[in-house]
Amino acid sequence: MHSSQQISAAAPDDIAMLTASQALQRIRSGDLSVEALARACLDRIAERDPQVRAWTHVNADLVLANARELDRSGPTGPLHGLPIGIKDIILTHDMPTQYNSPIYRGFHPRMDASCVSVLRAAGALIFGKTDTVEFASNARRALTRNPHDLARTPGGSSSGSGAAVGDHHVPLALGTQTGGSIIRPASFCGVYGFKPTWGVVGRDGSKTYSTTLDTIGWYGRSAEDLALLYEVFDRQPQAVPTIDLAKARVAVCRSPMWHHAGDATINALSNASRALREAGTEVTELELPSPFEQLVDCQVLIMRSEAQASFLPEYATALERLHPTLREQVENVDGYTREALCHAYDTAAHCRMTFDRLAASYDCVLTPSTIGEATLGLASTGEPIFNAMWTLLHVPCINIPGFTGPQGLPVGLTLTGPRFSDRRLLALAGPIGKLFHKIQNYGG
Amino acid sequence: MHSSQQISAAAPDDIAMLTASQALQRIRSGDLSVEALARACLDRIAERDPQVRAWTHVNADLVLANARELDRSGPTGPLHGLPIGIKDIILTHDMPTQYNSPIYRGFHPRMDASCVSVLRAAGALIFGKTDTVEFASNARRALTRNPHDLARTPGGSSSGSGAAVGDHHVPLALGTQTGGSIIRPASFCGVYGFKPTWGVVGRDGSKTYSTTLDTIGWYGRSAEDLALLYEVFDRQPQAVPTIDLAKARVAVCRSPMWHHAGDATINALSNASRALREAGTEVTELELPSPFEQLVDCQVLIMRSEAQASFLPEYATALERLHPTLREQVENVDGYTREALCHAYDTAAHCRMTFDRLAASYDCVLTPSTIGEATLGLASTGEPIFNAMWTLLHVPCINIPGFTGPQGLPVGLTLTGPRFSDRRLLALAGPIGKLFHKIQNYGG
Repeated sequence: MHSSQQISAAAPDDIAMLTASQALQRIRSGDLSVEALARACLDRIAERDPQVRAWTHVNADLVLANARELDRSGPTGPLHGLPIGIKDIILTHDMPTQYNSPIYRGFHPRMDASCVSVLRAAGALIFGKTDTVEFASNARRALTRNPHDLARTPGGSSSGSGAAVGDHHVPLALGTQTGGSIIRPASFCGVYGFKPTWGVVGRDGSKTYSTTLDTIGWYGRSAEDLALLYEVFDRQPQAVPTIDLAKARVAVCRSPMWHHAGDATINALSNASRALREAGTEVTELELPSPFEQLVDCQVLIMRSEAQASFLPEYATALERLHPTLREQVENVDGYTREALCHAYDTAAHCRMTFDRLAASYDCVLTPSTIGEATLGLASTGEPIFNAMWTLLHVPCINIPGFTGPQGLPVGLTLTGPRFSDRRLLALAGPIGKLFHKIQNYGG
Repeated sequence: MHSSQQISAAAPDDIAMLTASQALQRIRSGDLSVEALARACLDRIAERDPQVRAWTHVNADLVLANARELDRSGPTGPLHGLPIGIKDIILTHDMPTQYNSPIYRGFHPRMDASCVSVLRAAGALIFGKTDTVEFASNARRALTRNPHDLARTPGGSSSGSGAAVGDHHVPLALGTQTGGSIIRPASFCGVYGFKPTWGVVGRDGSKTYSTTLDTIGWYGRSAEDLALLYEVFDRQPQAVPTIDLAKARVAVCRSPMWHHAGDATINALSNASRALREAGTEVTELELPSPFEQLVDCQVLIMRSEAQASFLPEYATALERLHPTLREQVENVDGYTREALCHAYDTAAHCRMTFDRLAASYDCVLTPSTIGEATLGLASTGEPIFNAMWTLLHVPCINIPGFTGPQGLPVGLTLTGPRFSDRRLLALAGPIGKLFHKIQNYGG
């Protein structure tokens, strides 16, 4: 796997090491039971989670009972028997949902979020709840550590989901992104992470931070695994031609935030561009025109302005247990005006149209996922500076892992494209991921 | 009150006839207990609801216990003791939420929607659940009848909320609007109805139809009552100068849908314009430029496209109990493409900027609420043709009652304005409502 030493060695046939697609194939062929897969994941969690702390709730009895039920019923759907972790801001009828908030300790309404219902109907094995930054915001941190270096952050706010997949606890996990909360943990934990186009996945039962920005997505250890989930959520068929990298057109977009990039990211983007060119891909630099440079500020303004409504219930009922940063957002200590909010909405809308047009000339756009490797300590989950713009643009983003930085830790790059180009990006993520993996391992 | 005969006569001091603001004043002065107010509402419901059928759930014991608790605790907040009905697509921890869907019969997760938490914290008395069109969409109708003529629709989808306030069961009720689901019932039931600017009221725990469109709002029997609730949800202070109608500038916008207007609406808008002019108001015609005429189609396209994600859980788990129209939306029988969806998003965004600019020259914009009076039968809840554009524009809308049509039934007009002009509209709704009431009653 990665160059990290802290992920314990495992025999190549270790069941917990399988990707979702590999496990599914073995389950379908009768070579693996859902229960055996679940037990392998539970064993891995028992071994690793005392250090990694990805989970806030795993009920082994419930997991095994559901696994046996799936074995009894036989193939139930396209995700039959696949263990999936659920970020703990998303409701599950049979498990508590605690938002990493003292206000919601033991909170357990008997309902599934929309996305959890869809996963269950597709046969997924809802495995447990993964730790999150408080309310998927910038408040109280998850206890989760980076599985590649326990002294470092796994990123956030989907800290537990990124780490659980990166550390082979489960093959799949749901996350959410408002700034960079899916892509950053994916980059830091060395896994594939996907933020679909805004609106493709229903959000009912997932705690809102910002209606304009919040997007549900997921983690996997292969591009194929990301696509497997996508097909469950998006029923609108779309023919995607097979894209040969030798004939592809890729735009490299350093983005208006490039001056923030550290060595690991600079090297990754440079190596990726070279490898793509060597594979025959037409690689072009894409520079985004004004006012794209305003979008990072617009994202913060929209997020913190919409937080006023999102956290008003907690503010009104349990002020003393709400994190100060969230209190401040409800109180609008920033002094954001509604005129500024409308300006931010309108700037974003304008740039969405422009980006769709600009990106339509390419098969995909390649851009940084993070400043660099995961930073030391858990006090910061890292910067969303390379993600916020894309979240606001509502475009699909995939973190492709495969690079390592000076500390030997994972760094990924983001594939993006116009709104609703999800399937094309997912199709490209396979060959591009393989290419990145190859150059990293063979010094290409 | 209105000219209708079917609302039973009541002594002017009947407690159930009080507006929320009047009741609040009497509770605060010690002249009225919350329990006495609750009993008056329960009595009114017992008398009227067997015909009107506004409610799907009222637990009198729970209501009275909560009322007594509010009396014991003393003033708890700005809505202390005020009975409020909750549209039955909004979660309440102590009452079932059934969405008028056979899939959710008896559904009762123990959690409050965000807006219900805020109301409880403000001291409101959550009174019960009001009937709705299935999932606040265009599927199975509510059983509710128009209190002014039981043979007619109260409008929808917030059928029960509009009727409950119009028939004096409760002074306040929550509704939601995706097309015209707050304003239309307000017009048909002869009450004030308010759809705030999109985003002002948090939507967690309210079943989503369309993320881009859904807006939580409310009903009351005075402009003051609408403002009372607004102040609980919007904590961002804004100075609103007192506006003298004699110095006001009002734009009359017939809208690109004017050819749909019936006699009742044509007369109401004409009488309103005349009365405003006679009151000294500067009244101007506002014609909306292209592409505003596309917005009604854009609203339908966005609503039905976003429904694909919203009803996927029900489609995946209980297909046979999902209304055919919702199945069809999940299956995209319309064949809407994602290109068309992006075009609709972008057209709406463009028109939001234009409308804010155009409307900034006026104190408010006056426009039709409905085609005319409530139609016969319950099979149709009427057309949202005069509401859909404003919902998509995200602007605040207030239905001002006061007119009657040829059948002697209520017809209202809508006040609107730029995004976040909510407080200015609420301030204007008082004097404009009084003016309309006067001309209707004295033939001005």
